Amino acid sequence: MARARTGRRPGDSGTRDAILEAARGEFAQHGYDRATIRNVARGAGVDPALVHYFFGTKTELFAAAMQLPINPAELVQALLAGERDLIGERLVGTFLSVWDHAANRDVFIGLIRSAVTDERAAAMLREFAVRELFGRVAVTLGTPDAELRASLVFSQIFGLAVARYILRIEPLASAPGPVVAAAVGPTVQRYISGDLA
Amino acid sequence: MARARTGRRPGDSGTRDAILEAARGEFAQHGYDRATIRNVARGAGVDPALVHYFFGTKTELFAAAMQLPINPAELVQALLAGERDLIGERLVGTFLSVWDHAANRDVFIGLIRSAVTDERAAAMLREFAVRELFGRVAVTLGTPDAELRASLVFSQIFGLAVARYILRIEPLASAPGPVVAAAVGPTVQRYISGDLA
Repeated sequence: MARARTGRRPGDSGTRDAILEAARGEFAQHGYDRATIRNVARGAGVDPALVHYFFGTKTELFAAAMQLPINPAELVQALLAGERDLIGERLVGTFLSVWDHAANRDVFIGLIRSAVTDERAAAMLREFAVRELFGRVAVTLGTPDAELRASLVFSQIFGLAVARYILRIEPLASAPGPVVAAAVGPTVQRYISGDLA
Repeated sequence: MARARTGRRPGDSGTRDAILEAARGEFAQHGYDRATIRNVARGAGVDPALVHYFFGTKTELFAAAMQLPINPAELVQALLAGERDLIGERLVGTFLSVWDHAANRDVFIGLIRSAVTDERAAAMLREFAVRELFGRVAVTLGTPDAELRASLVFSQIFGLAVARYILRIEPLASAPGPVVAAAVGPTVQRYISGDLA
């Protein structure tokens, strides 16, 4: 038993941190798709069941390890719950409401910088975002070309994040969130459910 | 006379390279807006008139120094020359036709990586793109909120470039240029001339 080997008990205050640390290493090394809970558990010296117990699914573990302030599954549900015509605007508004808080932004900016300069970080972000966020929305909606749609949404959200928070291009950087959501929302809406040709 | 000091003559094969090298340093140090032809000339040890003679305007000098395969002024003219309703699609198609050639892509990817990780490179790209490319299109069209529109176009073009060429998100990375231009063009068109609220 790995857990017996390190002597960690589920209640140890360091156990969660050890799992998150192992998860960051596992995602960085293998990317999102090929990372496994089993490897994370082995790296942290705990039983896989404990990883599930603390963090749930691989998606949720990723969100916790990357300090993402959003639970992807809940985000997708919330987006799909309201008016279908306004999914794009809600999606943009949700991202902005999270990122507009400086405390949420640092880890996220680090993710973007790594992804643009390092191929393994790129693979990790790519796989996570397309599969767990945008892909789910498109697949749930049942539109054709779901993967192309997901990657188009990614391109706009990623570019918006860079322009607003990293390059700080005005007036986009200082515009109120709702103004930006109104401007960019229809783009995302069309990518998700509109005519692309 | 600076030229006399270094002994360079207009015909020297190294003069152009010295000017481009000095220009890269000047843009990197001062950003696009505050860079001056006078400083570039001083850095290269030549007369300012020679910089203009070889490279034209500051915009054109920037394009040459960054090895941009597009002359911004010509690009803007070409975009505005055809059907106004299809400016977005032409803009996306033009960028893709340039970047789809691997030879053009390396310097450009370097620009993006620098801009995301280094504040001075960020300022340089931001000022150049907004002022000389997108801003000109919007101003020429005479639409209100030209600066917001320019920054929105920037966000989509930048995100598209990262998704297609750096993160290589499929199927966006491998889709034929015209397919992508048809999908993304209407976004850019709406940002340039559509209703944003």
